[in-house]
Amino acid sequence: MSVRIEHDTFGEIEVPAEKYWGAQTQRSKQNFPVGKEKMPIEVIYGFAHLKRAAAVVNKELGKLSEAKAAAIVKACDDVLAGKLDEHFPLVVWQTGSGTQSNMNVNEVVAFAANQYLAESDSEERIHPNDDVNKSQSSNDTYPTAMHIALYNEIEVKLMPALDRLRNTLKDKEEKFAHIIKIGRTHLQDATPLTLGQEISGWRYMLDKCEELLNTAKKELLNLAIGGTAVGTGINAHPEFGDRVAAQIKEQTGYDFVSSPNKFHALTAHDEVTFVHGALKALAADLMKIANDVRWLASGPRAGLGELSIPENEPGSSIMPGKVNPTQSEMLTMVAVQVMGNDTVIGMAASQGNFELNVFKPVIMYNTLQSIYLLADGMNSFNDNCAVGIEPIEENITNYLNQSLMLVTALNPHIGYEKAAYIAKTAHKEGLTLKESALKSGYLTEEQYNDWIKPEDMIHPK
Amino acid sequence: MSVRIEHDTFGEIEVPAEKYWGAQTQRSKQNFPVGKEKMPIEVIYGFAHLKRAAAVVNKELGKLSEAKAAAIVKACDDVLAGKLDEHFPLVVWQTGSGTQSNMNVNEVVAFAANQYLAESDSEERIHPNDDVNKSQSSNDTYPTAMHIALYNEIEVKLMPALDRLRNTLKDKEEKFAHIIKIGRTHLQDATPLTLGQEISGWRYMLDKCEELLNTAKKELLNLAIGGTAVGTGINAHPEFGDRVAAQIKEQTGYDFVSSPNKFHALTAHDEVTFVHGALKALAADLMKIANDVRWLASGPRAGLGELSIPENEPGSSIMPGKVNPTQSEMLTMVAVQVMGNDTVIGMAASQGNFELNVFKPVIMYNTLQSIYLLADGMNSFNDNCAVGIEPIEENITNYLNQSLMLVTALNPHIGYEKAAYIAKTAHKEGLTLKESALKSGYLTEEQYNDWIKPEDMIHPK
Amino acid sequence: MSVRIEHDTFGEIEVPAEKYWGAQTQRSKQNFPVGKEKMPIEVIYGFAHLKRAAAVVNKELGKLSEAKAAAIVKACDDVLAGKLDEHFPLVVWQTGSGTQSNMNVNEVVAFAANQYLAESDSEERIHPNDDVNKSQSSNDTYPTAMHIALYNEIEVKLMPALDRLRNTLKDKEEKFAHIIKIGRTHLQDATPLTLGQEISGWRYMLDKCEELLNTAKKELLNLAIGGTAVGTGINAHPEFGDRVAAQIKEQTGYDFVSSPNKFHALTAHDEVTFVHGALKALAADLMKIANDVRWLASGPRAGLGELSIPENEPGSSIMPGKVNPTQSEMLTMVAVQVMGNDTVIGMAASQGNFELNVFKPVIMYNTLQSIYLLADGMNSFNDNCAVGIEPIEENITNYLNQSLMLVTALNPHIGYEKAAYIAKTAHKEGLTLKESALKSGYLTEEQYNDWIKPEDMIHPK
Amino acid sequence: MSVRIEHDTFGEIEVPAEKYWGAQTQRSKQNFPVGKEKMPIEVIYGFAHLKRAAAVVNKELGKLSEAKAAAIVKACDDVLAGKLDEHFPLVVWQTGSGTQSNMNVNEVVAFAANQYLAESDSEERIHPNDDVNKSQSSNDTYPTAMHIALYNEIEVKLMPALDRLRNTLKDKEEKFAHIIKIGRTHLQDATPLTLGQEISGWRYMLDKCEELLNTAKKELLNLAIGGTAVGTGINAHPEFGDRVAAQIKEQTGYDFVSSPNKFHALTAHDEVTFVHGALKALAADLMKIANDVRWLASGPRAGLGELSIPENEPGSSIMPGKVNPTQSEMLTMVAVQVMGNDTVIGMAASQGNFELNVFKPVIMYNTLQSIYLLADGMNSFNDNCAVGIEPIEENITNYLNQSLMLVTALNPHIGYEKAAYIAKTAHKEGLTLKESALKSGYLTEEQYNDWIKPEDMIHPK
Repeated sequence: MSVRIEHDTFGEIEVPAEKYWGAQTQRSKQNFPVGKEKMPIEVIYGFAHLKRAAAVVNKELGKLSEAKAAAIVKACDDVLAGKLDEHFPLVVWQTGSGTQSNMNVNEVVAFAANQYLAESDSEERIHPNDDVNKSQSSNDTYPTAMHIALYNEIEVKLMPALDRLRNTLKDKEEKFAHIIKIGRTHLQDATPLTLGQEISGWRYMLDKCEELLNTAKKELLNLAIGGTAVGTGINAHPEFGDRVAAQIKEQTGYDFVSSPNKFHALTAHDEVTFVHGALKALAADLMKIANDVRWLASGPRAGLGELSIPENEPGSSIMPGKVNPTQSEMLTMVAVQVMGNDTVIGMAASQGNFELNVFKPVIMYNTLQSIYLLADGMNSFNDNCAVGIEPIEENITNYLNQSLMLVTALNPHIGYEKAAYIAKTAHKEGLTLKESALKSGYLTEEQYNDWIKPEDMIHPK
Repeated sequence: MSVRIEHDTFGEIEVPAEKYWGAQTQRSKQNFPVGKEKMPIEVIYGFAHLKRAAAVVNKELGKLSEAKAAAIVKACDDVLAGKLDEHFPLVVWQTGSGTQSNMNVNEVVAFAANQYLAESDSEERIHPNDDVNKSQSSNDTYPTAMHIALYNEIEVKLMPALDRLRNTLKDKEEKFAHIIKIGRTHLQDATPLTLGQEISGWRYMLDKCEELLNTAKKELLNLAIGGTAVGTGINAHPEFGDRVAAQIKEQTGYDFVSSPNKFHALTAHDEVTFVHGALKALAADLMKIANDVRWLASGPRAGLGELSIPENEPGSSIMPGKVNPTQSEMLTMVAVQVMGNDTVIGMAASQGNFELNVFKPVIMYNTLQSIYLLADGMNSFNDNCAVGIEPIEENITNYLNQSLMLVTALNPHIGYEKAAYIAKTAHKEGLTLKESALKSGYLTEEQYNDWIKPEDMIHPK
Repeated sequence: MSVRIEHDTFGEIEVPAEKYWGAQTQRSKQNFPVGKEKMPIEVIYGFAHLKRAAAVVNKELGKLSEAKAAAIVKACDDVLAGKLDEHFPLVVWQTGSGTQSNMNVNEVVAFAANQYLAESDSEERIHPNDDVNKSQSSNDTYPTAMHIALYNEIEVKLMPALDRLRNTLKDKEEKFAHIIKIGRTHLQDATPLTLGQEISGWRYMLDKCEELLNTAKKELLNLAIGGTAVGTGINAHPEFGDRVAAQIKEQTGYDFVSSPNKFHALTAHDEVTFVHGALKALAADLMKIANDVRWLASGPRAGLGELSIPENEPGSSIMPGKVNPTQSEMLTMVAVQVMGNDTVIGMAASQGNFELNVFKPVIMYNTLQSIYLLADGMNSFNDNCAVGIEPIEENITNYLNQSLMLVTALNPHIGYEKAAYIAKTAHKEGLTLKESALKSGYLTEEQYNDWIKPEDMIHPK
Repeated sequence: MSVRIEHDTFGEIEVPAEKYWGAQTQRSKQNFPVGKEKMPIEVIYGFAHLKRAAAVVNKELGKLSEAKAAAIVKACDDVLAGKLDEHFPLVVWQTGSGTQSNMNVNEVVAFAANQYLAESDSEERIHPNDDVNKSQSSNDTYPTAMHIALYNEIEVKLMPALDRLRNTLKDKEEKFAHIIKIGRTHLQDATPLTLGQEISGWRYMLDKCEELLNTAKKELLNLAIGGTAVGTGINAHPEFGDRVAAQIKEQTGYDFVSSPNKFHALTAHDEVTFVHGALKALAADLMKIANDVRWLASGPRAGLGELSIPENEPGSSIMPGKVNPTQSEMLTMVAVQVMGNDTVIGMAASQGNFELNVFKPVIMYNTLQSIYLLADGMNSFNDNCAVGIEPIEENITNYLNQSLMLVTALNPHIGYEKAAYIAKTAHKEGLTLKESALKSGYLTEEQYNDWIKPEDMIHPK
């Protein structure tokens, strides 16, 4: 391997010649041979948005030459275009401030920018700390990159996936609005509803989670930038934070602002904890939906068998012809993972000390994982399962006709206790509800036919 | 023990003569000898608000006589006044729909209301199911009582406690605005800030959590009432849900509405999960604040010793004269408990099946515990610790004067690398920063005095 | 309220005259008006065992007079007999070392012992710190009391409950050993097994958890006693720890020893974390069993309906005659609570600093709650559900006869792919397995009858 | 991309020509475009051990020809040698039984084995299901592979890392056995101990966790193999399970046995939950150790400053010369991750239904991540931090000399209350302990010098 010599305040160090990173990145790579989890590239892109905006603002404030700023902007655009992904080798399990990932970005941007300067015959050269990191600290840049990355992933990845699945469910809700089926509470037969109504509950969970996420994600619009080392803004211009936030808003289209209290912004992650609470609510709802789907599709002959779902692959290596609700299984595993990630985030958020919380990379790793797993999971569940959900009407009708809980419609006419007597007798003696009702003498056949109509039991009246 | 005979659809059963509850409560008491955790009285009060409103509306809709409605209203008012607390003996660990607690309320309200009817010489008698529970099911009433109880506890208990602690911190922030101290990141010395600024970070955490909670709690304003057994509203008047919500709003002053999708309201608890996410964010922040306080007050001679906190009790049974940061210890234990409760709630919320989630009591138990522990914890921490926080200025000043991180102010003048050289030399050779700076030859004494001013390092410029 | 004046090193304070506690208990009561959760009485009893043993040993070592020791022993016996429960008023949310609960015990024991001394005309008087707490610190006594209490609760409460439920399941396993039923994997029909085999899986879960708990609980036999303030054993006799452990062993019958490293014993709670891991494994298994039971008992007409379980109470306030699997619901809520408690314990165990972990009360509160909820939950589930489990043989046989997964028995004869073809054709065309098999031409009717015998499919051959 | 056509019972499908996998793997790849987390290669190797052993046993039992068995063995050896890693492309988020990963192994082994057969001019050909998977099901093979993989990773990766760090701490413990320092409880000054003693607490945590893990890991020695589809062992020879377990024992050197109850083995993961409880205990201890190290190394001038740790990289992008305890930060993030993983595992273990738990891949993913993060984390912390820990004796001595808690040594001589008076007076008036003691008149200077000797306070006497 060909190497070049880089240096930092700790001295010289060999770096692979073809890599853009510098001494600090190399040190971190060597000092943290831990795990396989790379610092998510979304964080790097968040940094690139920020470094680009900082260069623009530093130029405006007269702190950076036009040539330097232009070169940094070009380098950041290269990062954002995904051209330099290979130059960000660090893992999650590093310093808890993400300092080395900030330096990794500073070093790679400086390297790429210096190439642009060299190409343009400028004699200026960019320093990772003094130029790319000008007016900044890891302590305000890493949380800024966190919020940019999380907001963007929610917008670009999660919300569209949620929307797709919601729309599929909305379609099913309308399509199956006429199919009356037995309700189930406590896993026991209950009063009827339509399949459309049942699915509307699932659909509304997604409506609700969309609302929760739209509410929660606004918290991410507060950026730490401008706080520098400890929140005071030392070495930054008084307008730096506000201007950079405005510039990032311009670059991304999202309404970012500079956080009103930078001490909070460096050391508290209540906002991310709150956002992840909404992700957990979504995970809980998806677990419920996926469980309902697989239960209703259970069988084919010894289960509930009210729904059929797409058969995507052989289900068993030993049982020929078996088909399983694998998309539900995937989605429930995703949900459980998000629950665990939520434990991580709450605990990590609680562990700040003084001017800094040093659990930032683990917070980011888990929150981003929750977002992409939920997004991918919903997309896959939608495409490979939900779109193909169909009722098995024969079974649905059989259950409805056999049910005893239609008795509930008698309450207003004969009271709860007599109605209970009828249902219990039917259950004990294996009668139909009608047989038991007539046998009880509490009502006539005409009354029975008039009062027990499933189609009248699926709405208030 | 004197008993009376009560009956339900399962037959007769003996009930303590002096208790108002009926057969179903008695059965639950006998069937669930599990744990010590009573169904929280706040849930009972939530039910009482609801049963009262339902009686008013049932009367308006012509479904309940004036006399019956009036008696139910009086009985509910007795419950809400705390007069009947002893008649609600059930535990959390019962049916997951809370059905027996709904029936407990129905039975006690019916009993008390029948006493009023008897006193007024009315011959009407109230039935727990047919009258008190009219147009309702456990499945829509329990989640309605949940939301009423949680919203109220947040309003009445949590927010005032949060506000008190925030105001105390705000006072300290202003009072100590002039005290410049060393900052700490990664537990290592960093650039200075004022003690007021440091405390402002804590104060803003509470501002932030107040905002998060105010946002999140709105989700609780949606009430399940009107959904009855499975969400369809069977046996209820079409206007029942809306009218009851409006009546509860009138009774409580909170802007409750009937949920737009009752299938969701019975089977999903995403809203509570979301609210508890905000409670967890608060817990994380309080853990951070309590930790900072005890660390800054650590010592008295072998710790950081920047703050003094009230001495409330002897700290050790063996070490005479020891005083410990016990309020911080209480608050961090509370925070950890809330983290665990959050695990419960997310998991419980994910376990609904079909038309009902049957983990409601455990969700309520944990959410209410989080609320009152956070509220009590903040009040106690405020009264017994925060109000008495005082700086130990001698130590604060010593640390500031010894610090090497003032070197950061040199970056804009001599660059990061030379500044690093100065700091590292000072550290290695045990020099003051000034000694090292002058020794380096990178700047003159005049420059040093001009550039290194802590009072200029606590804000951007 | 009549009061007396007590004092400690903080000065004088009023204490209710009829209470045995002293100044430090009173201070803690006033300083921590937080929550409703009392320091569990089991912890107090653990302390009483310890204080008793310490008095015996201190006397043996010549550090305590016979009269004093005898009086302390009598007072401790009173505590252990439950006679003094009302004198332990403190809450969980206090100092994290449990110091005030140690002092509460010291004070109450001293008070009661002084009464004995006074009665016997002795002029000696016992001091809470200098006598009852002699050679001890809160820092070694609280964790000692923890281990005593936990070990005892596991032995006395949990293991018998586990054993009862296991034996019930063992009975059912044997009783239903002959009933062949369809297996289900992924909720989908699978190859058959006997109901006895299915239940043996549940029974073995309890066997396994008994083994896990018996293994894990041994970790609790290590006692911190002898470490005193920071683990060094300052102010204790070199043999104190070993002798006290031996004395506690004699008192309780459990094989307690003095921990080989006291620094660990004061500041680490890995042992309790490990024990709670076993409790969590049990909770997970119970959740699985309770879910299986309620699913197999689902219906009565639109569910799986393979089992009937006892009907204990009316299931619905609106649906007459409904009966729900409420014991399963109770047990699954208990399981979820234990999961949350586990989060608390792991986090709390991680938060020690230097010579002490100050999250002891919250660890105890949660671990004890897990133990008694699991114990009570298993007892209630056993008595009110498991003992009454009966098969509904008609449904079981119908499912078995309809199943397609008997096809698996053809693999060794015609290969997986042809077998799959037969099963899939049956599913698509609504045929029985036999019809489809014969139609395929891959085997004769004689072969079919010979190869497809459920009774041959429930074991290897 | 060049493709070939493969088929399974679902029909034909295109597979990349250069890949060994078959139709079912390809389907899973297409059906689950979810996340980035690959099924861990350790699981694949676990399968390879199993498939190899199964081939050997099937041959012994006369169910597989010698040629086929030999070819499968060679193919499995290739997998185990890491030669075929690229042919296992599936993700964690697939079917919850891991069926497609079992099939992936079956397909790749069959493909490679068929190459060997073809090379040897054999005309036999191996079928993924009928030969490689003979006498097996995903339902017993996946959990078998889990236990093999987990046991091996604990042995090969985790225990050596634990051992290294423990030995380093043991060295430090001995090396610093003579250095007397102040103890700290509640973060407040306490009685003294030696630095060696303090480190012995950390070292013993690792001893303890080694013991916990050695105890817990034995649970993994039970293998599900032999249970096939639902636990009955259908289509397997009665001796298959025992023989395969024995063969795996021979291959790996670990004492694997066939589980005594296969119904449990397929549907319960209490054993893994228990093992992860031990991993969580280790995580909690490591968090404590890492926190202690960074606190004791805090400063350099405004912290505790009792230890120096290696300086590995520049600590700040803005504060020149800053060095941070980054290895502690890495390790505490790892610990927090393990806490979250534990939430996942407990919840996943609770979600089995009937004859199968379908959360196996997510359980494996999290457990393996915990193992390698803990192992890597300990190795990195050891090499880059622990080995370089050195005392800063000047600071240690200063703290010791200033401390007031040496007063504890006076308890046996003058009693707790007088000793407390001395300490409190010293604290209030800024006196040394000796000054205050003499001023009190409770003891003479000679007595003071005789009684207050730190070197006598670090052990019982």
